[in-house]
Amino acid sequence: MKNMVYIQSGGPTSVINTSLYGAIKEAKKHPDLIGHIYGSQHGVEGLIDDDLIDLGLEDDEQIELLLQTPGSILGTTRRKLPKDIHTPEYAAIIENIKKHNIGYVFINGGNDSMDTCNKLAKLVKELGIEDVKVIGVPKTIDNDLACTDHSLGFPSAAKFVINSVNAFAMDANCFKKGKVHIVEIMGRDAGWLTASVDLLPEQTRPHLIYLPEMKFDLEQFLKDVERVYKEKGFALVAISEGLQFERDMTNVRVDGFGHAQLGGAAAELCRIVENRLDIGTRAVEFSIIQRAFPQYVSLVDRKEAIKTGEKAVQAALKGKTGKMIIFERVSQNPYKIKYKLAPLSKVANAVSHVKPEMIVDATRMSDSFRDYLRPLVQGEVKLVYKDGIAPVTNFKRIKVK
Amino acid sequence: MKNMVYIQSGGPTSVINTSLYGAIKEAKKHPDLIGHIYGSQHGVEGLIDDDLIDLGLEDDEQIELLLQTPGSILGTTRRKLPKDIHTPEYAAIIENIKKHNIGYVFINGGNDSMDTCNKLAKLVKELGIEDVKVIGVPKTIDNDLACTDHSLGFPSAAKFVINSVNAFAMDANCFKKGKVHIVEIMGRDAGWLTASVDLLPEQTRPHLIYLPEMKFDLEQFLKDVERVYKEKGFALVAISEGLQFERDMTNVRVDGFGHAQLGGAAAELCRIVENRLDIGTRAVEFSIIQRAFPQYVSLVDRKEAIKTGEKAVQAALKGKTGKMIIFERVSQNPYKIKYKLAPLSKVANAVSHVKPEMIVDATRMSDSFRDYLRPLVQGEVKLVYKDGIAPVTNFKRIKVK
Repeated sequence: MKNMVYIQSGGPTSVINTSLYGAIKEAKKHPDLIGHIYGSQHGVEGLIDDDLIDLGLEDDEQIELLLQTPGSILGTTRRKLPKDIHTPEYAAIIENIKKHNIGYVFINGGNDSMDTCNKLAKLVKELGIEDVKVIGVPKTIDNDLACTDHSLGFPSAAKFVINSVNAFAMDANCFKKGKVHIVEIMGRDAGWLTASVDLLPEQTRPHLIYLPEMKFDLEQFLKDVERVYKEKGFALVAISEGLQFERDMTNVRVDGFGHAQLGGAAAELCRIVENRLDIGTRAVEFSIIQRAFPQYVSLVDRKEAIKTGEKAVQAALKGKTGKMIIFERVSQNPYKIKYKLAPLSKVANAVSHVKPEMIVDATRMSDSFRDYLRPLVQGEVKLVYKDGIAPVTNFKRIKVK
Repeated sequence: MKNMVYIQSGGPTSVINTSLYGAIKEAKKHPDLIGHIYGSQHGVEGLIDDDLIDLGLEDDEQIELLLQTPGSILGTTRRKLPKDIHTPEYAAIIENIKKHNIGYVFINGGNDSMDTCNKLAKLVKELGIEDVKVIGVPKTIDNDLACTDHSLGFPSAAKFVINSVNAFAMDANCFKKGKVHIVEIMGRDAGWLTASVDLLPEQTRPHLIYLPEMKFDLEQFLKDVERVYKEKGFALVAISEGLQFERDMTNVRVDGFGHAQLGGAAAELCRIVENRLDIGTRAVEFSIIQRAFPQYVSLVDRKEAIKTGEKAVQAALKGKTGKMIIFERVSQNPYKIKYKLAPLSKVANAVSHVKPEMIVDATRMSDSFRDYLRPLVQGEVKLVYKDGIAPVTNFKRIKVK
């Protein structure tokens, strides 16, 4: 009998621990097939450094709280594995897989993490370790994973962003002399999350929406902002953090994957609006709260996250490897998806963008976009509260020797 | 029979429209005493410019939605009335009060708005218009109104801040190499809202908390941050936007009341930490969402906001004037308050600070602070959702001629 190890990788989402919950629950149903349920601390680094914890020793109450625990409870990493598989990292991974008698490896992550997952799957295959199955669990609030209808975490982030902009718009528009409010929303390469605000009713919908998928012309932007401001007496603009426009890129930090750490686009556009149009502005960044807000987990996202954790375990037990769980939308009304598998090699490092036909212009998305998004943000979750605060999982973290 | 006019003033809170809800509901119970229920648009400016709307003509469904509508639904202002009552503003107000046969004026606001309320009460007294009653309804997320146990809006803002920092801490602490995270929380003169994070359990509580009431020493701050970072591998710091430290005050904007528009304190401290300690940082501002988040309205705050609106109408009908509704805590366990009246002259422009005995040091507040705060953030509200979004009031706004 083999043991399993679960890895969380890349940026957290509101439901990343919910998939872990589903995987643990499913694994416990198969005590004849799965021995120990291990968690690798800080992503693949735990597998390299032999830093595993025994999730089977955690209390049920703490496992239940995973459903409302933000962040990556096992810790995460943005470390990318090298291309060359003849390196000490890979040797350490194989050593630890053998040492801990691991037969099932699950990596829950986004694009970069699926690349890691793919490399690992290839490695065990090349080494002929046929009894180790590697399965990817999709997550990214950016919703830019290829091969799947959507990614876990995106629906909840969208629900937070939509409801927060709804609230923000009401507060921003109650002074007689309005401002230009620019809200910066996460999304480095893809504008799915920013575009989600288009689902709002006219009363609170941003007047202008700019995605990385649009060609952004600064002069046209200023004209649009000025037109809206003259007409409405205030302006509400939503932009993606990854919006491309000419700006000073000196002093921009770079993360572990070599990506520029963006942010500050709203602040910079506000400065330009103030200087060029002489209108007061306010820049707002929702920051990491948008991916970590348990009260705005969409019920659909929660259900799918649990199911995906279960499906991943089931797939591995069936002998599948080198695959990621994907969602195929088989019915729109009522909304229904099928869980399938896609080869990791097809998923790794591909990017799914907002489709051109989903964008009308900077003022509106298309019906097809809203039809796509609407079912995903349905349903509210009921959290457990204690003294007004939603408690989170506090694991004992007993190390595997 | 006289009409009433309701005014919302200053910065909105999550429950400012909830007090209006209570006042409308109560006024409708007295059709023999109160004729029309008017709303003044954009604070006292509506009374000056004769811009009133008839709230009695709004649909019940829209009135109900006030309970989950952020912002100030009537519009608001930061305009301060002049000291000299022989000015055109006052003449216009009196003219409109007479024109619309107004007998009851309610101003829902914070410190500056209670000053306006006080001036108005004095004016009608000096002019001998004895049949006009002026009553203040307290609100401010800063919780710095004098004479009252607490102010409406603060408990809900605290509930949002506490739960958001709880979530934020989980996300911020899941990378192996941690950062110094500095969260900037609203509060210009008083640190009540920032201090509220002290209610969190150790797992997610900020390691360091800095309020405007503390003497802030930049060198000591750097020592404290470095010590925490070395010990924990990351650091979570909460600061008030009004934190006093030496910074470049050029280009700081000033609002209508002549107050410097602060903000950016976290960003500036992050820059200093990076330069001096060579540690990665992240600055976060919750911005106006913290005062406008219907899903984190505390049930206690909602109930008290409704009751206060009712009490204000009842007080005016009893002939009271020049007073603000205040809360006296008569029992701690179970939590119980009494609604009383305080003279506006005592409330206007006074500031209630966090008491010295409530502060232990930069790492902890006292038991007395937590005992004070705990009952206020209890209870969650159930919002109405439609298609995943919490709808907000959309008034017809029929102007009074």
